[in-house]
Amino acid sequence: MSRSERFLRACRGEAADCTPVWFMRQAGRYMKAYQEIRARYPLMEMFRTPGLAAEITLQPVRAFSIDAAIIFADILLPLEGMGIGFEFVESRGPVIARPVRSAADIEALRVADPEEDLGYVLEAVRNVRAEIDGKVPLIGFAGAPFTLAGYAIEGGGSPNHLLTKRVMYEQPEAWDLLMDKIVRTLVPFLKAQVRAGAQAVQLFDSWVGCLDPSDYARYVAPHTRRIFRELRAEAIVSIHFGTGTAGLLPFMAEAGGDVLGVDWRLPLGEAWRKAGPGVHIQGNLDPAALLAPREVLVRKAVEVLDSAAGRPGHIFNLGHGILPGTPEDSVRALADLVHERSAGLSRTQPSAAT
Amino acid sequence: MSRSERFLRACRGEAADCTPVWFMRQAGRYMKAYQEIRARYPLMEMFRTPGLAAEITLQPVRAFSIDAAIIFADILLPLEGMGIGFEFVESRGPVIARPVRSAADIEALRVADPEEDLGYVLEAVRNVRAEIDGKVPLIGFAGAPFTLAGYAIEGGGSPNHLLTKRVMYEQPEAWDLLMDKIVRTLVPFLKAQVRAGAQAVQLFDSWVGCLDPSDYARYVAPHTRRIFRELRAEAIVSIHFGTGTAGLLPFMAEAGGDVLGVDWRLPLGEAWRKAGPGVHIQGNLDPAALLAPREVLVRKAVEVLDSAAGRPGHIFNLGHGILPGTPEDSVRALADLVHERSAGLSRTQPSAAT
Repeated sequence: MSRSERFLRACRGEAADCTPVWFMRQAGRYMKAYQEIRARYPLMEMFRTPGLAAEITLQPVRAFSIDAAIIFADILLPLEGMGIGFEFVESRGPVIARPVRSAADIEALRVADPEEDLGYVLEAVRNVRAEIDGKVPLIGFAGAPFTLAGYAIEGGGSPNHLLTKRVMYEQPEAWDLLMDKIVRTLVPFLKAQVRAGAQAVQLFDSWVGCLDPSDYARYVAPHTRRIFRELRAEAIVSIHFGTGTAGLLPFMAEAGGDVLGVDWRLPLGEAWRKAGPGVHIQGNLDPAALLAPREVLVRKAVEVLDSAAGRPGHIFNLGHGILPGTPEDSVRALADLVHERSAGLSRTQPSAAT
Repeated sequence: MSRSERFLRACRGEAADCTPVWFMRQAGRYMKAYQEIRARYPLMEMFRTPGLAAEITLQPVRAFSIDAAIIFADILLPLEGMGIGFEFVESRGPVIARPVRSAADIEALRVADPEEDLGYVLEAVRNVRAEIDGKVPLIGFAGAPFTLAGYAIEGGGSPNHLLTKRVMYEQPEAWDLLMDKIVRTLVPFLKAQVRAGAQAVQLFDSWVGCLDPSDYARYVAPHTRRIFRELRAEAIVSIHFGTGTAGLLPFMAEAGGDVLGVDWRLPLGEAWRKAGPGVHIQGNLDPAALLAPREVLVRKAVEVLDSAAGRPGHIFNLGHGILPGTPEDSVRALADLVHERSAGLSRTQPSAAT
């Protein structure tokens, strides 16, 4: 089996010759090749220049034995076309100049158009696909409705998403309208990424773990579910990712996604039980392990593989993005280790035989 | 049954006339009476002046129908006597001037003496107990070893505790020494609070949820377990609290505590199953609910009570501390609601009959 098939087979729960592996934020600031580009361009210009975004997407595919590429972009890009401008401020992350908090703010938002507002992402997807077709599959992505609404309301990152929860609790109709506009932005954008060449899409609900299960089921799941239904209707392979979601997994699984992405806070076996039948699992090494001494990295990676026990439908990943300062050598060693160790596991698992 | 008995009965898993309720950070900045004191004194002076700390401890006991007092102090206070100075910086929280990161830094630390270094807390405990004896029980507390080590190493709050994890992974002997010195500081301090009049103690492992279960079991549990063993040997009632701990609960329960404090990210029934037999549960309303419209607060509080189903051994609390800006009226209404609704629940549960 070639490197091109492992990832998509695992997304369908099919056995592969070994466990596929890719890393969230695999294209980015820990790589020397990336830093050379970053030194010459502002971040937003890198996203908006398809040639640069494609080159950055390809850097980790060339450097490491990973089984998928993910387009170099940002989860927040869809907000701009909705009328929610932002910039990336050094050491603070994204900052939204005019946060969206009132019903009037929300009513004034547009639904973004994928070609007009996000055509540069689609062009980068086309460039990358032309380059890697047949080698490794390409993943498109966007932020999930809750996480995008959270940034829009808080004006940036937040420790507790209190303003976001207040909009949910105090202005439920305005909240639903905001989520609806985000959904109507995301569905065409994700489909357009697939038309442009992405073979799977990941929805990042990075901050949804601040919610209790009841609020998730009431205020988030109905909106997120619409996206996954639309994707499934077109047989688009999808990954549904969040962090701090131990209590939310049954509801996230019900909302949709062929694969649930989980963080390191829950053993994989438990994640599988909570996700229920027919859902596959991506994760879940703590990104801090990549900054640990090699023997600690190996021990922790093997623990993740052992907890998946060679089960088909496991995609090895981190529980969140690669951290700045991560040594490239550790990323390389981890990708190789996953392949070597899991090939052994698969051979001993009759149920995983290809 | 009087207000004085509910809390301690629940800590032992015994039925009570209704579910006891108290709130983390119930004494603090959301109260007008507190703000009047705060306007006149720096925060550290308030902790160090037993008369002020006692008065602040009593304010919510007078204002609301809560079933326990908790001494006004800070989880970090034990660090100072170890040689780790800090100050509270407006809008940033605690800042440690010289973070502890090398083996030499850790070797230089002292073990604090409860009477010499923390006598002001003990004096405040004595003052409060004299005032409320027979009315409501008094809870003493401290930060747990991991959370204190995290502050000491990071130099303050941290989004991912990466420096802390690096000490764990790269310098495991230094890590164990740091944890050992914290344990030898905490055990006498917690026992001294009980000798001074506290009828239970809570260990706040507020940030332990950043760890995966394997790291928790390896680097944290052996140290935390020593504390709970020492408390149990003296029949001291103890609460073991953390946030984001869905995956850690079985290990936290094994490390000890009569009661596990859990946050809102996991339904109470699931927390009970994970904690195993003989462990009681405190929690778990999202503190954001106290800033919601009354009908949302009521719905969410009832969901928490329903998920406990009148089971003996439930202590109603938030999943983390009361947030600034919380209306006092909401706190009052919540305490009353817990008593009224749970009295109804208990009556329908034969197993909960007193």
